[in-house]
Amino acid sequence: MEPTAELYPPERLARVQEATADAGLGALLLTPGPDLRYVTGYDAKQLERLTCLVVPAASDPFLVVPRLEMPAAQASPAGRLGVELVAWDETDDPFTLVTRRLPGGLRQVGVADRMWAVMALRFLAALPDVEQIPAGTVLRGLRMRKSPAEIDALRAAGAAIDRVHEAVPALLRPGRTEREVSQDIGAAIIAEGHSTVDFVIVASGPNGASPHHEVSDRVIEPGDVVVVDIGGSMPSGYCSDETRTYAVGRPPADFLAYYEVLQVAQRVAREAIRPGVTPESVDAAARKLIADAGYGEYFVHRTGHGIGLETHEDPYIVAGNAEPLAPGMAFSIEPGIYPGPHGARIEDIVVCTDDGHESMNTVDRSLRLIDA
Amino acid sequence: MEPTAELYPPERLARVQEATADAGLGALLLTPGPDLRYVTGYDAKQLERLTCLVVPAASDPFLVVPRLEMPAAQASPAGRLGVELVAWDETDDPFTLVTRRLPGGLRQVGVADRMWAVMALRFLAALPDVEQIPAGTVLRGLRMRKSPAEIDALRAAGAAIDRVHEAVPALLRPGRTEREVSQDIGAAIIAEGHSTVDFVIVASGPNGASPHHEVSDRVIEPGDVVVVDIGGSMPSGYCSDETRTYAVGRPPADFLAYYEVLQVAQRVAREAIRPGVTPESVDAAARKLIADAGYGEYFVHRTGHGIGLETHEDPYIVAGNAEPLAPGMAFSIEPGIYPGPHGARIEDIVVCTDDGHESMNTVDRSLRLIDA
Repeated sequence: MEPTAELYPPERLARVQEATADAGLGALLLTPGPDLRYVTGYDAKQLERLTCLVVPAASDPFLVVPRLEMPAAQASPAGRLGVELVAWDETDDPFTLVTRRLPGGLRQVGVADRMWAVMALRFLAALPDVEQIPAGTVLRGLRMRKSPAEIDALRAAGAAIDRVHEAVPALLRPGRTEREVSQDIGAAIIAEGHSTVDFVIVASGPNGASPHHEVSDRVIEPGDVVVVDIGGSMPSGYCSDETRTYAVGRPPADFLAYYEVLQVAQRVAREAIRPGVTPESVDAAARKLIADAGYGEYFVHRTGHGIGLETHEDPYIVAGNAEPLAPGMAFSIEPGIYPGPHGARIEDIVVCTDDGHESMNTVDRSLRLIDA
Repeated sequence: MEPTAELYPPERLARVQEATADAGLGALLLTPGPDLRYVTGYDAKQLERLTCLVVPAASDPFLVVPRLEMPAAQASPAGRLGVELVAWDETDDPFTLVTRRLPGGLRQVGVADRMWAVMALRFLAALPDVEQIPAGTVLRGLRMRKSPAEIDALRAAGAAIDRVHEAVPALLRPGRTEREVSQDIGAAIIAEGHSTVDFVIVASGPNGASPHHEVSDRVIEPGDVVVVDIGGSMPSGYCSDETRTYAVGRPPADFLAYYEVLQVAQRVAREAIRPGVTPESVDAAARKLIADAGYGEYFVHRTGHGIGLETHEDPYIVAGNAEPLAPGMAFSIEPGIYPGPHGARIEDIVVCTDDGHESMNTVDRSLRLIDA
């Protein structure tokens, strides 16, 4: 799905400006990255030359861009927002260009969460008496609750990565290395409609016991259990992320015992989702079931993370997060059990609905058996 | 070329620590990115979970990592530096974990140039009286002067992207779109040994008049001039970046006039390189020649940028940069002329040697003619 005006509605900028004023901030300074893209649809590159959308709480927004990037900025969705584009030349100082145009008397500005520190420090030098706070303070509440168009974009991303998982059994053959399999999966991620491959984890045998193992030259052998955790970004900007666990030939008996526990825990966590429930209670639902079965010490990570324009964003499904879920929130549910010399994880992206959840991923969650 | 101990020497950490002390900084805080990779060889991912190498000026460095990433950190070059690895759990606050272990009485710390602002602000909240300055203040002098092993890595990157340019004439056929050509070039960038495709610009006909046009669905036609500017990152971490201009069929006569000027200007700029010469004078050498020929207003960007673990880093070859060149500095020389309805650019990566320069790229710089 290509970006559309439904996905990046032009009126969003005015909503963000109101939220900036409501938060008591004088302005937002948004350099390229997910915050800028969310507000404008502009998928600008993060480069050493400053591009910055300035959203003052009480005056007109403007976009500062290197003169070189003007054609791209004008052609981007940001060029259609009616925002003034201000070009700077190779020998100008773009930071003072921004700060001289800001209203006087500012006390606090919000800087894009992913702004490079070196740029935030340049803004601080130009505005030494203005406190910087993360723009996420204003934007996270908006970004967390996905619109119907954003949910459509996540659904399309989920369907694309589902198709890749459906192709995995043909790629995951004994005698191939993790790296060979991962290269084919990367090509399939693109072929199924993503614009970038964000990560490909193929963790076979003992490598599956490390939740963040990526790939190695280990040869896949009959009897291996393989954790495949993959994702990419769609042309829309929205991300996919899905994990399934595969057994090549006959899996070890002790593995089967905990895989069944994991599958139930993943379902129990999903079924705990509804508006008003806290992320920490969803985490606890999965964790309690796994602990009661005797595997608690092997579930070494949180249950999930939000997803949207970033693979990992708010809300985090983790102990300590008591901010209630609400319709439109999108996140992963991905418990894992890693006792060694193998491990397992099952992950879906889900969206909180008015009375439960909808899963963006539909590939069968039972152990995926591959003939060896 | 895979990363080696020559490329990321373990003794570099001690040199960085000395430089930190010499700069009067209490410590460096290095999150994942090129600064951390330069110091340790550790190619960690930038994620929301904090990974941070702490390099105090006068006590032992330590690396704070999410417990999930411990196996990866231990297996990485950072795991072989004799540095303590400090794991944190999902519900810990890693920022106070770092700041509690820092020596008392700090006045200034250096933060990785590309640290996310949201993380720098968390460190600021934990250390409100400690001034943050860019770690580049300490690291840029070291990173700018490449070691023989780093130059080997750039040479390998240059040879890889040369091979891709040699393959371009077979891909750049009339009737194909820029996007189709760019997809094939992307595949060739990987096939020739890069681990990532960083950018693929295929700017045909009028699109060539915008220096930072990327790709479109425009169909390449006989008579088009096409600017192809491509690069990727090698498994070593080092980057390639090379531009050639191609003519599909017979190019316009006015184009040929300025292409010849451009080719001479690019050579003159390269020949101006030697230790002690300033980047601004190299920029001026190319700019004067182009201006004298009447095309000055169409050379709308600096002459070049440094390159290494980042595609764009110090030194910048631009008016105002009077810091003299020194042996081992690596940068692009890439003048361009963009009068419309077409444009041209020629770019090589070069390294300053004891008495001149060495080019990492050797593909013929004359206009590359393709039969239409």
